[in-house]
Amino acid sequence: MEEQQQSDLIKPIEWLEGKVIILDQTRLPESVVFIETADYREVVEAIKTLRVRGAPAIGVATAYGIALGCLGISASDKQSFKSGFDEILDEFKRARPTAVNLFKAAARMEKALNIDNDIEEIKEELILEAKNIHSEENAATTKLSLLGAELIKDGFTILTHCNTGPLATAGYGTALGVIYAAKEQGKNVNVIATETRPLLQGARLTTWELMTMNIPVRLIVDSAAGSLLHNGKIDCVIVGADRIAENGDTANKIGTYSLAVLAHENNVPFYIAAPVSTIDFNIKTGKQIIVEERASEEVTTIDGKQITPTDVKALNPAFDVTPNKHITAIITDKCICKKPFKESIGGLNKT
Amino acid sequence: MEEQQQSDLIKPIEWLEGKVIILDQTRLPESVVFIETADYREVVEAIKTLRVRGAPAIGVATAYGIALGCLGISASDKQSFKSGFDEILDEFKRARPTAVNLFKAAARMEKALNIDNDIEEIKEELILEAKNIHSEENAATTKLSLLGAELIKDGFTILTHCNTGPLATAGYGTALGVIYAAKEQGKNVNVIATETRPLLQGARLTTWELMTMNIPVRLIVDSAAGSLLHNGKIDCVIVGADRIAENGDTANKIGTYSLAVLAHENNVPFYIAAPVSTIDFNIKTGKQIIVEERASEEVTTIDGKQITPTDVKALNPAFDVTPNKHITAIITDKCICKKPFKESIGGLNKT
Repeated sequence: MEEQQQSDLIKPIEWLEGKVIILDQTRLPESVVFIETADYREVVEAIKTLRVRGAPAIGVATAYGIALGCLGISASDKQSFKSGFDEILDEFKRARPTAVNLFKAAARMEKALNIDNDIEEIKEELILEAKNIHSEENAATTKLSLLGAELIKDGFTILTHCNTGPLATAGYGTALGVIYAAKEQGKNVNVIATETRPLLQGARLTTWELMTMNIPVRLIVDSAAGSLLHNGKIDCVIVGADRIAENGDTANKIGTYSLAVLAHENNVPFYIAAPVSTIDFNIKTGKQIIVEERASEEVTTIDGKQITPTDVKALNPAFDVTPNKHITAIITDKCICKKPFKESIGGLNKT
Repeated sequence: MEEQQQSDLIKPIEWLEGKVIILDQTRLPESVVFIETADYREVVEAIKTLRVRGAPAIGVATAYGIALGCLGISASDKQSFKSGFDEILDEFKRARPTAVNLFKAAARMEKALNIDNDIEEIKEELILEAKNIHSEENAATTKLSLLGAELIKDGFTILTHCNTGPLATAGYGTALGVIYAAKEQGKNVNVIATETRPLLQGARLTTWELMTMNIPVRLIVDSAAGSLLHNGKIDCVIVGADRIAENGDTANKIGTYSLAVLAHENNVPFYIAAPVSTIDFNIKTGKQIIVEERASEEVTTIDGKQITPTDVKALNPAFDVTPNKHITAIITDKCICKKPFKESIGGLNKT
């Protein structure tokens, strides 16, 4: 993974000479449209409307957005600058109130604000901190991808779910990062991507990213994965994670649990790829994870078009929790955690 | 299941005084449109364009369509009548060349043609045979539904996949028939319906049928089924079948295998509901069943709209095969077959 190769990655969010450049993910895969803006409100809007999506990418967008907002504060006294900063911070916090990475990034930017310095110095430091957040994110997924790639053999056909590449992480990616790294090591890899209903991140984004990276990909409906696993068409499954408990139980996009059970049933390795920051050492098991129930309309409509009788009710759990027993290994940026997870994951908390 | 209740069923295909009435399933759930026709070519067209769908319903439509065509033959000599009949038969056979029920119905109509009789008598007999095919279909699924309903307890929440009700069977239905019969026995039942990508039969048709029958239904994306099974929300799973091997291995809509494995993993009963006619005694195990691969476009588009990059490849197996070990019981119109299936199913071949 040389500098040159890194620069080939799809970049959902970037800082460029006092401006933020956002790849509008709501326009994909039809159009590749970049929004270049010096107005932080456009960054807030992009987070609200999912032009930027994926937990780590939202964190990076928040950091750059706050830095951009501060650049535009014209106040020359520090008190006015501070209240301007607080207002900007609040606007970001209201953009997606449940996004953990947004709040983590906002907290780091707040901490980086050193009111003892000159205003110009403060602005420089905030830009620097935002760049640090971005490069740390990038470094973590790059490390993770390189570690994970060791598990991939030449000629593997890999099943993945949802979207976990540069678009979602503003770095190398997690599950897709592992696949990219394997490809860059010269291995031939083929990907089977689930469409990932209801929001079709697999159909819309993962296929687009893989095609952009020249990796052969074939799309399936979510329910076809079991049959392919049963028929020996898949060498391993790799997915990302939203939250990992201390015992390895993993919350991720709805459908992940099913893939894990089906992989286990058919003796196919099932890997989770996620940076250590995804592990929540405060929760012992997946039972403590509360699953978000999202709007019915995500199921009853596709692209705004109703696909059901108008008054049908839908259940729409956004995530599911995969028990550790169905997980072969958890690929992190520190090491590949194997069973027993309580020991391997617990060790990460001590380092 | 009294006569009165039967008449409340949704009727996808009917014979009414020298005409055929077809419920246009391509217009569901937006509109309930019946096509009333005295022209057999419209019946052929309805089969071709999936206005009538579901294996048994296609068989009934074929029989009525052939009878309708023969009514319209004006020839007074038997030789001309016979060649008119043969032409009509050919048109139906070309409508959906892989539909087994279509060919079975056509063969029965051909056998019912008694050239020794007067032409008017022949026409009467052909209408009678078509009605027989319809009522036998109806009787089989009614019997099956009543038998299966014994497995359903008051208060059950039942998971089903694809569409297996009157719309598909021109009778009582298979998996949905069991649910209707349980409801008519006064049991409270709740249904969780999978949307059934790629063609969304669950989202479009099953929800509509259940709502029409006043049975509470909630829709889920296919990949959410595992999570509901894992969380104890489902009391049993019932699905239909396209073809059952002598050992109980069952081919059915893609995604059935996954549901069976997930039900088994979570100790939830998994039932197949299908008339004995669905059992193929010529095949020993599911390994002999060849799975149809359908067009990529079914996956890459929804309602004609592209949901992926334009040149993405998709795999689209129409069916999967569930090994008998994951099946709790097979509900037929003769009896409920339990393990070992080789004995219970084998017994059906001898009766």
